[in-house]
Amino acid sequence: MAGVQMASVRIREAKEGDCGHILRLIRELAEYEKLSDQVKISEEALRADGFGEKPFYHCLVAELLPALGEPQGPCVVGYGLYYFIYSTWKGRNVYLEDIYVMPEYRGQGIGSQIIKKVAQVALNKGCSQFRLAVLDWNKSAMDLYKALGAQDLTETEGWHSFRFEGEVMRELAGK
Amino acid sequence: MAGVQMASVRIREAKEGDCGHILRLIRELAEYEKLSDQVKISEEALRADGFGEKPFYHCLVAELLPALGEPQGPCVVGYGLYYFIYSTWKGRNVYLEDIYVMPEYRGQGIGSQIIKKVAQVALNKGCSQFRLAVLDWNKSAMDLYKALGAQDLTETEGWHSFRFEGEVMRELAGK
Repeated sequence: MAGVQMASVRIREAKEGDCGHILRLIRELAEYEKLSDQVKISEEALRADGFGEKPFYHCLVAELLPALGEPQGPCVVGYGLYYFIYSTWKGRNVYLEDIYVMPEYRGQGIGSQIIKKVAQVALNKGCSQFRLAVLDWNKSAMDLYKALGAQDLTETEGWHSFRFEGEVMRELAGK
Repeated sequence: MAGVQMASVRIREAKEGDCGHILRLIRELAEYEKLSDQVKISEEALRADGFGEKPFYHCLVAELLPALGEPQGPCVVGYGLYYFIYSTWKGRNVYLEDIYVMPEYRGQGIGSQIIKKVAQVALNKGCSQFRLAVLDWNKSAMDLYKALGAQDLTETEGWHSFRFEGEVMRELAGK
């Protein structure tokens, strides 16, 4: 048996040392979303905010384990970043802020594996749902989430996302 | 000077003893949104989740202080419930999950006062933005947020909200 051995993928919790990889993928995702000018985060902030005593977020990474005989070490090729939110209808919940798989590793079910892991985390923490947001032109992502059973609440119930920021927010606050 | 004295409104942080009022207003808001069948939360859950050592949410209440000579005590007529989220572009942020003012007390700027207070909290905590969601048929709310300077990200960037829940989520998780 000397068939081609595919590299295998492992989904695991991120460690502080992964923050450089995570930032690289955050930037790739923002470029893909055509909104890369909005990325202001630094590796230091990611380290401080996700790995202190009171983490503001949690992160899963998809790590490629090289096939036997291949020289390079494990490589982070995707991530899912989430945190706990609160629904006044259902209580504690999970929000998947980002999910991303590098283009050359798509079509292998890595995104679905990340989503499944998030569903497991949510259930284990007593959450009855998890939410995420997707851009309307990102058909492949929308199709994947729908195929996995998600509801598009903007379509079915009419929810719109609003944001206050920058100078507007400072004026609002009277500062 | 014996003119009519209007009742005045105070926006303050909620206390555990307000949870009964908050639940009443959560139900009123869900009815207004025509989604009241989705409310499963209890007063006990609100007390435990918002007022323990590690609160999952924070809440502001709008309290009506009766005019001099009026017999009844202060009354909670609105609320804004928020929590901290995390943007991979901007870091720590605030999400205003619910904002509601009882119909008979609208038009006095109570909603704007709650939003201003949320903006102050966000800035004081080092957040550069806050987000919220609104139903597309709720024109008066949309108009208010826009007048205050918010951006409708569903309109301008195409963001759609997705949700996994219930049986779908258990299947995803393989449970």
